[in-house]
Amino acid sequence: MKIGIVDTTFSRIDMGKIAIDELKNYAGIRYARKTVPGIKDIPVEAKKLIEEQECDIVITLGWVGKTEKDMLSYLALSIGKIMAELMTSRHIVDVTVHEDEAEDEKALLAIAEDRIRKHVRNAVDLIRDPDRLVKEAGKGKRQGFEDAGQIVR
Amino acid sequence: MKIGIVDTTFSRIDMGKIAIDELKNYAGIRYARKTVPGIKDIPVEAKKLIEEQECDIVITLGWVGKTEKDMLSYLALSIGKIMAELMTSRHIVDVTVHEDEAEDEKALLAIAEDRIRKHVRNAVDLIRDPDRLVKEAGKGKRQGFEDAGQIVR
Amino acid sequence: MKIGIVDTTFSRIDMGKIAIDELKNYAGIRYARKTVPGIKDIPVEAKKLIEEQECDIVITLGWVGKTEKDMLSYLALSIGKIMAELMTSRHIVDVTVHEDEAEDEKALLAIAEDRIRKHVRNAVDLIRDPDRLVKEAGKGKRQGFEDAGQIVR
Amino acid sequence: MKIGIVDTTFSRIDMGKIAIDELKNYAGIRYARKTVPGIKDIPVEAKKLIEEQECDIVITLGWVGKTEKDMLSYLALSIGKIMAELMTSRHIVDVTVHEDEAEDEKALLAIAEDRIRKHVRNAVDLIRDPDRLVKEAGKGKRQGFEDAGQIVR
Amino acid sequence: MKIGIVDTTFSRIDMGKIAIDELKNYAGIRYARKTVPGIKDIPVEAKKLIEEQECDIVITLGWVGKTEKDMLSYLALSIGKIMAELMTSRHIVDVTVHEDEAEDEKALLAIAEDRIRKHVRNAVDLIRDPDRLVKEAGKGKRQGFEDAGQIVR
Repeated sequence: MKIGIVDTTFSRIDMGKIAIDELKNYAGIRYARKTVPGIKDIPVEAKKLIEEQECDIVITLGWVGKTEKDMLSYLALSIGKIMAELMTSRHIVDVTVHEDEAEDEKALLAIAEDRIRKHVRNAVDLIRDPDRLVKEAGKGKRQGFEDAGQIVR
Repeated sequence: MKIGIVDTTFSRIDMGKIAIDELKNYAGIRYARKTVPGIKDIPVEAKKLIEEQECDIVITLGWVGKTEKDMLSYLALSIGKIMAELMTSRHIVDVTVHEDEAEDEKALLAIAEDRIRKHVRNAVDLIRDPDRLVKEAGKGKRQGFEDAGQIVR
Repeated sequence: MKIGIVDTTFSRIDMGKIAIDELKNYAGIRYARKTVPGIKDIPVEAKKLIEEQECDIVITLGWVGKTEKDMLSYLALSIGKIMAELMTSRHIVDVTVHEDEAEDEKALLAIAEDRIRKHVRNAVDLIRDPDRLVKEAGKGKRQGFEDAGQIVR
Repeated sequence: MKIGIVDTTFSRIDMGKIAIDELKNYAGIRYARKTVPGIKDIPVEAKKLIEEQECDIVITLGWVGKTEKDMLSYLALSIGKIMAELMTSRHIVDVTVHEDEAEDEKALLAIAEDRIRKHVRNAVDLIRDPDRLVKEAGKGKRQGFEDAGQIVR
Repeated sequence: MKIGIVDTTFSRIDMGKIAIDELKNYAGIRYARKTVPGIKDIPVEAKKLIEEQECDIVITLGWVGKTEKDMLSYLALSIGKIMAELMTSRHIVDVTVHEDEAEDEKALLAIAEDRIRKHVRNAVDLIRDPDRLVKEAGKGKRQGFEDAGQIVR
């Protein structure tokens, strides 16, 4: 098994480093890391990791600004990520941090770290233990924040 | 015949469980269930169920938050769901619950349950009895709410 | 020649019935009719009619609600309809009625009926008499309303 | 060399006629003209002209209304036009007139005519003299209005 | 190695010239330059440079106006750029300047120049020295403005 990791130079946090750290803690799986300038460069890099580096899954790590242009770029990234998945029939787990999720830099860092670590586990489980995710279905899991939890009847 | 079911860990309701329950009530059809982290992970999982697990149709179960980012993710899901259908020439019946459809958790649960059960029947009919749907054409059917009904001349 | 017709159970008007009636009045062309739950299910059904039922063209009949979510679904439908066309190199004539086009149910019905009948003729002409459309180029034709007409110098 | 022209019956100006007139003035190149109902029908017609009529390039002529629905249709057209180009590796030069660009019908007509004529020349040059466009790079060329001009240091 | 450069006649700055100048300073790599009318014409030209001119990567240089229509065109460009990348498995580094990024023409020129030069280096490194980008991961690099910098714990 091999996992691809794509992050950006645009990000204000070394997201790839956190992902690799979590990957080592959670699973002894080989990885390939690539860095691209910004989020719109991510989908093709993920596809290349699957096709050229034989990755079974890719974790993409994006950082999104606050403007309307940034939101449209996020939409293009999201559509492109899904198209890359459909063209390869492989999952690409997208971790995105939006600068407007917190005012405080420390808070942004905490959101990013929690989100990355949880999604690295999700990605590992998708290829190694997909039944773990079925057990978590509908539990209101959140990445970057506390879980919202399941609605009880 | 075989039906695929995809839900998420993000959802605050175990949507897959409700779908399976309805599937057993309405039709003795085999199914395969998968759970992914969030709605943007759904389209490729639906395509994999069709291609790798020989599902004739897939029911996808999504839960969408209230922010602008969530709406853009919903749009990406919708475009991706349609692309997955076009690439496989199979239907993927998308059941989405938006958190802003009700303030009350109980109300959200009722919307979700009604929507899931009705769309499971729609999915079964699409592959087993498509003429039942033709008989319901233009009847203002709603899932999650009461039917709007047909406009009478 | 054969025409496909796709409508929905979501619609509050039996749009397929009107289309078939107009098709019989305007042209003795064979047709295949399918009904799906909602507008996001339309593109793949149109593609299946072209590929599996040998339709030369498809008329799709959609009904769109008033919310932001409905507008995003309309956008996904529109992109999906165009992708289905590009993948098959066949026209899919999309007839969409938006609930906010009129407050009054009778007015909505009148809009729908006029729009469907005119677009059925457009679809027939696209495969049987495309030069009729060239003669109407730039005439400000409207479906559902009176023609806007050509701007005169 | 052969140029495809696609316009619509929705347009309030016979845009195809203006394009053909300019094409005759500017270049003795063969053309094929098609008319479709509205802008969402344009991309597949452009693809068909390239594939079935051996056009080297296509000029598409669209007219867009003022509502939010019209803007979403414009977006679907734009994405579809680009997808048709990517699937054929041919340029499709899109000329779009938006009804809200001017209040006055005469002004709209002037915008449309100027935009069409300039883009017909662009399309011809793209296949016959692409270096002419390189010479105009960064010159702030506008179609439908006066050129914005180059920013001088 | 060979780099493609695509710019537009719409741009108010000769963006291609700046890109070529930086390319000569930074790397003695062959290039092919093409100019198209506007941003929606960019994706297919980039794909043609990869397929027909054997470019290993393409730098696209777009200029975007201030209206809602311009923002939708930017979205179509962004989605199209990503689709062209996915179809070719090659990077296309998109440099976009939005007219509303500065009021002053001189300021716009400064933004454009800085953004182009930095992204030319990014493009060169993506094909010649991708590890340089990994070293810059998470450093808050910005093009057109000063770097935002890395968030320190």
